[in-house]
Amino acid sequence: MHGTPGYADDKQQVLARLRRIEGQVRGLQRMIDDDTYCIDVLTQVAAVTKALQGVGLHLLDEHLQHCVAGAASNGEQTEALVHEATKAVERLLRS
Amino acid sequence: MHGTPGYADDKQQVLARLRRIEGQVRGLQRMIDDDTYCIDVLTQVAAVTKALQGVGLHLLDEHLQHCVAGAASNGEQTEALVHEATKAVERLLRS
Amino acid sequence: MHGTPGYADDKQQVLARLRRIEGQVRGLQRMIDDDTYCIDVLTQVAAVTKALQGVGLHLLDEHLQHCVAGAASNGEQTEALVHEATKAVERLLRS
Amino acid sequence: MHGTPGYADDKQQVLARLRRIEGQVRGLQRMIDDDTYCIDVLTQVAAVTKALQGVGLHLLDEHLQHCVAGAASNGEQTEALVHEATKAVERLLRS
Repeated sequence: MHGTPGYADDKQQVLARLRRIEGQVRGLQRMIDDDTYCIDVLTQVAAVTKALQGVGLHLLDEHLQHCVAGAASNGEQTEALVHEATKAVERLLRS
Repeated sequence: MHGTPGYADDKQQVLARLRRIEGQVRGLQRMIDDDTYCIDVLTQVAAVTKALQGVGLHLLDEHLQHCVAGAASNGEQTEALVHEATKAVERLLRS
Repeated sequence: MHGTPGYADDKQQVLARLRRIEGQVRGLQRMIDDDTYCIDVLTQVAAVTKALQGVGLHLLDEHLQHCVAGAASNGEQTEALVHEATKAVERLLRS
Repeated sequence: MHGTPGYADDKQQVLARLRRIEGQVRGLQRMIDDDTYCIDVLTQVAAVTKALQGVGLHLLDEHLQHCVAGAASNGEQTEALVHEATKAVERLLRS
């Protein structure tokens, strides 16, 4: 139904960012294991959250470019696609 | 330079939401004036923030529809427009 | 039941910040009235949200200091107070 | 310097939640590998972010209870500890 996703061209880069985030989550486990001071763990939780949101923003950008603007330039209706993207932004904001 | 903004068609509705938010901010002042319990003020701060973000999401939706998809359907390049919109989403997320 | 709120000592400063935010919300209405470009309005929405969250963080700080730590130093149980504060933080995060 | 962290009593539960989050991040990689539709990936990014913030809120709660209120009940000054915790909340909010 949707064909190639918007991130098709830089799939390897997105995967590399997610592998780095996986490593950061393992780093958080080591911090807990080592009884690291709560505030230092929280600082790192904020950093990992920011990295994840960064991947989200990148995927959003690719989606708006390739899927939404792409559909519009093919003369397709985009109202439903735009609402879907705005709803996705709302979920990121509320998380 | 940009012509009609994306929210041109429901300007009155956006203004009504912002006037309601202005009233909520005055309500916060009354709560402080009345020595309302901190947590109850914080709950209301979260509600006003949510209302403001709601206006932001609405403006984003209109912008993506009328300005970004609109440009694409006219055969214009949208890469810069999309990056600009993603940056705006990032500012909402980080606020 | 709760006595003096945590922000009692700098009530005037909190009120001044909220009045400034009220002015910013009126500024947003003028931007809409003037057909300001969507992205510029969104940037200002993010700024007002950040100012509101700043007031929330200030109230949280005062609450933790005067109400939570205050109760603890009087030998009172604080588990319920702490949970209540964490829930308030969660509402700020989710807004 | 700080002694036992606030989460000492439920370290295993925190570790279990972080291992689940690690699994969710690997799940995101599989979604990208499988060319999953952008919006579905974004929905899952929001879910993982929410799970991470949930761990952050839990650590904050334990910290306020055991480290901040704990210090106050020992008659120690807590102003610096409270500011430190508020700054940590600010980093979570801005991420």
